[in-house]
This record gives sequence, C-alpha cells and structure tokens, in this order.
Amino acid sequence: MDLDLVSPATSNDPAVSVIRAKAQLRRALERPRREGLRIGLVPTMGYLHDGHLSLLRAARAECDLVVMSLFVNPTQFGPGEDLDRYPRDEERDLWLAAEAGVDFVYAPPVEEVYPEGFATTVAVGGPLTEVLDGDPSRRGPSHFRGVTTVVAKLLNSVGPDVAYFGQKDAQQAAVVRRMVRDLDFPVRIAVLPTVREPDGLAMSSRNAYLEPADRERAVALSRALAAVRDAALGGSPLAAALAAGEAELAAAGIEPEYLEARDAETFAAVAELGARPVLVAVAAPVGPARLIDNVLIDPANHGGEAATSSPGND
Amino acid sequence: MDLDLVSPATSNDPAVSVIRAKAQLRRALERPRREGLRIGLVPTMGYLHDGHLSLLRAARAECDLVVMSLFVNPTQFGPGEDLDRYPRDEERDLWLAAEAGVDFVYAPPVEEVYPEGFATTVAVGGPLTEVLDGDPSRRGPSHFRGVTTVVAKLLNSVGPDVAYFGQKDAQQAAVVRRMVRDLDFPVRIAVLPTVREPDGLAMSSRNAYLEPADRERAVALSRALAAVRDAALGGSPLAAALAAGEAELAAAGIEPEYLEARDAETFAAVAELGARPVLVAVAAPVGPARLIDNVLIDPANHGGEAATSSPGND
Repeated sequence: MDLDLVSPATSNDPAVSVIRAKAQLRRALERPRREGLRIGLVPTMGYLHDGHLSLLRAARAECDLVVMSLFVNPTQFGPGEDLDRYPRDEERDLWLAAEAGVDFVYAPPVEEVYPEGFATTVAVGGPLTEVLDGDPSRRGPSHFRGVTTVVAKLLNSVGPDVAYFGQKDAQQAAVVRRMVRDLDFPVRIAVLPTVREPDGLAMSSRNAYLEPADRERAVALSRALAAVRDAALGGSPLAAALAAGEAELAAAGIEPEYLEARDAETFAAVAELGARPVLVAVAAPVGPARLIDNVLIDPANHGGEAATSSPGND
Repeated sequence: MDLDLVSPATSNDPAVSVIRAKAQLRRALERPRREGLRIGLVPTMGYLHDGHLSLLRAARAECDLVVMSLFVNPTQFGPGEDLDRYPRDEERDLWLAAEAGVDFVYAPPVEEVYPEGFATTVAVGGPLTEVLDGDPSRRGPSHFRGVTTVVAKLLNSVGPDVAYFGQKDAQQAAVVRRMVRDLDFPVRIAVLPTVREPDGLAMSSRNAYLEPADRERAVALSRALAAVRDAALGGSPLAAALAAGEAELAAAGIEPEYLEARDAETFAAVAELGARPVLVAVAAPVGPARLIDNVLIDPANHGGEAATSSPGND
C-alpha cells in the first residue's frame, strides 16, 4: 500500500490513512463504493476545533466510510486576506481525525488541486453571493467562486453520499446547497449547528489569532446576535432590533463589516419578520481576526435557536 | 414503471425508455450502477444524423448501458442565434435511438433543467473559450458557459463512465475535456471523428437549413480545410496555406467568420507548423445556416487526417 499510515505512539492509538493524490483517492474509494458503502465527506481547511469534530462525529454516525479533506484553499482567500498566516497543524489534525474515526484524510498539495493550465470556475450568481460578503474590496463573490469550485472538485473526487458543512458560515452553506441543487450533484448537503465556547463565541480556526483581551471582546458578536433575536421576537421592528445588536458591538469597541437580516434561504433583504425564517449575520474584525457568526430567527418554529438551527437543512 | 415506452408499430421494432425527470433518471440508473455496469452517455440536441449515430454505436460497443440525452439547451444559444428555429423531430430521434440500441433517452423539458432560482455557472476561461468563437456579438465565451454548465449537469445526473462527443465541434470537445479534467469528474471523454457526406460536407443538424444551391456551396468548407492542410504539409508557410483556404471559400462566395490555425490542445495561436498538432477550424454563414468544420494537421503522425483524428483524445 502506498498510503501514509499515521498512527500515534502506542498501538492502542487510532490511525488514519493520508492520501495526497486524487488518483490514489479514487482507487481507495472504488471498492467501498462498489460494495454500496455510504460515504461521508467533511471538507475542512484544517486546524480542527470542536465545530469540525461535530461534523466528523455526525459523518461517523451516519456513514460507513468517512473522508475528511484537509486543504487550505488559496482561491477562496482575497488578496488582502490571511492565506499566508492561516493556522496549520497537520500532525494534530491527523491525530484528531484518527480519533474521530475518519477513514481517509485527503490532504493534497496545492499543485494537485490546481495543476498548470487549470482554467475552470464554478460560480453561483445572484443575491446568495452578492450580499453580505459582496464588497469586492473585502471578500466578495470571488471568495464564493473559490469555495464552489473547490467543493465541486471535492464532490467529484470523493463521490460522497453526504457532505457536511457548519452553520457558522451560513452563507457558504446556502451557496454550496444552491450549487449542488443547480448542478445535480448526487449528494445530500448536511448543515450542522454552530458549536460554541461556553461563553457563546462561535468556534473558528481564526479564534487562534485572538490575544486574551480580543478573545474577551469577541464574545460581543454572539451577544449582539442574541440581542437582535430577542428584540425581534419581543416585537421590536427589525431595524430597532439590529440597532440593539449594533449597540452590543459598539460597547465592546467592535465595528462590524455588516450586521444584517436576510431571508435565510434566498438571502434577499427583509424589512420585517414574517412567516419565513430570517438569518441575522455578522462579520467583524476583532484584533487581527475577521470573525463571523449568525443566528436564525424562525417565528413559525419556536423562534429559532442561536446555535442549533440551520436554514433549509434537508 | 412510470417510463414512457416508445416502440414503433410492429413488435419486432426496437423500443427505448424515455425519461423526462432527473429524479426518475437517477432511480433508473441506480441498480445498473450498483451492479457495476459500464454506462455511456451521448449528449445530443436531437435531430440526429450519422454523426450522432456513430457516437451511439461507439457507446453501444464499449458500454453495458447507453444513455442519450436529447435537449436543445437554450443557454448555449446567443441572442441572435437560431434557438427558435433549431430543427426538432423527437419521434424520429427516439426511433433512431431505439434502433441504435440506446437504453434510456433523457429528454427533459427546459424547466426541469433550469428550474426557477437557478443561479450556477460552470465556465472554462482562457484561450480555449476566448478565441475563434470569441466575438461576444456572435457566440463568444457565453456559448461555452452554456455548454459546460449543461454538460456538468448531465454528467452529474447520469454518472457515466464515458461521455461521447464529436470532433466536428473541436473547440467544444477541448473545452469539455478541460472542464472534466479541472473539476475531477470521474468520466472519460471520448471524441469521435467527424462524419461526412460523400462530397465531404461535415454532418450537422443545421445542414437541414440548406437549400440545394447553398448545400452545393457548403462543400467549400471541407475543401478549404483540405487545401490548408495540403499546402501546409507541402511546405507552404501557414499564412500562405490559410490564404489557399480563403481562396476556396471566396470561389464559393463564402465569407468565413474565421479560418484559423490553432494549437490543437491549448488553442493558442500558432505561426508555423511545428512538432505539436495544429487544428485548422472554420466557421461560416452559408445561406441561413452557420456551419463549422475543422481539420487536424499532425506532422509527427502521418500528417493527420481530415476526418479521422481528434486532438488529445484519451
């Protein structure tokens, strides 16, 4: 076998197969697929936290074979973003993956994913990618083109029955779901609740950038979202509810890139709470980190939960 | 079974299953796929001619199960193009498909392929789509975006082991090949030689537009390509060889949209014949039809053949 077998020191410790090339990945999955095994894919950029682990656990529980991809995808980073300093710790990631019962970790080098001559893009247009992150000087639609292109490649390389995404990037999940539906990928997209620190901060690999003082201020994001949700469900007009959230952020000295309410499925603008679920999403720089978080308000469904709902999940 | 079974009058005649919905297509292919049957896909816009039939025959010979798609894809037609008058004859197509041993014809209505809210595009960038048809006022890259998007959908809907294309649209074949390679679709793209009328005219559904006088003039396209090839292989500079081709067209009163020599794989401009195969491609209006044709010149490989070679075929 030409697979790297990563196994920690003692023989009781778990092991996982690491695959670097897509041809090798295809060979490894050929037999399981033929045998009708249910394959789960968890795409990650590594530096795993409990949010990732919750996806791996769900995949392990629902599928016969779990593939985790580990690839810091350069095409979804903007020119001014943190590609170079994005945190990496492959050894630890492999250990955690093994412990979570992952069967294969697909961790290709950049040139395996984007060889010379690469020229194809998968793009979702419309409000789904043009709002919130839509300012091209920040991230914008080109960020999502990077996401949809690499996810399309991963879906084709792995051929999973289910692919798992986190609700923390609600917009990414909605964009991927749209792409999968539009291009008829034979896969179910599962979106799992955001996992939070005890004080409410959404788990993120980028939390590693936070010094203690910033870490403390960062909790204002989830507090702001809770304020918006509580005010809106309490009967405040949406604009007033959002202002309550802005006040929470301001109190922590945080100026958001956006704090907006959007239709949870189409991302169209919403003026007032109605029958359809509304997503309130925030992005803000906190110290050296750009953090995001969101909350779903679903008046028809017990108001929605800060950390356990997902828009349009199958 | 909820399939339309199309079978001609007598019971000895062939029959084929017609599928209108992708969910139904997926169900029909589930068991054959699980059993490891080799699936071939022949995408068509219908109005079948001998070129299509040669693809169906190849699929029938190489695969266990043959799916033909029949869909006049609106997104690959430009605003000034012939979408409305594109020739259609589904009954005849189904009969020919049945006779060629096709197992399933997937013939969806437009709203099944592009339902409301559809927002995703697959695009190949660079010279492959920007040259030859690259004038946006004619067809341009948006034509190829239409092609790559619908082919991506068909590949995901059918999940074929092999998909068959004709060398007559060499650029389309190269673009599809690029997309499949870039997005890691687990499929082999087979490109089959252009099939010609006895006088050399490349078979095309659009030949149906030609009145007898235009039909006669149309043979100048293949004659022009032969003139370019013969002159180039005889040692003429490429510019002179192309001029010989232009003269053939002019003699028939045909003014081409382009008559160009390009690297057969990358479609980069070529100044002179070298070691790499060169594609000479022509597009021209002839009466009410826009016709295309091409010839491969491969000095390293017996010069290449007008109607039997394909660039970079697997």
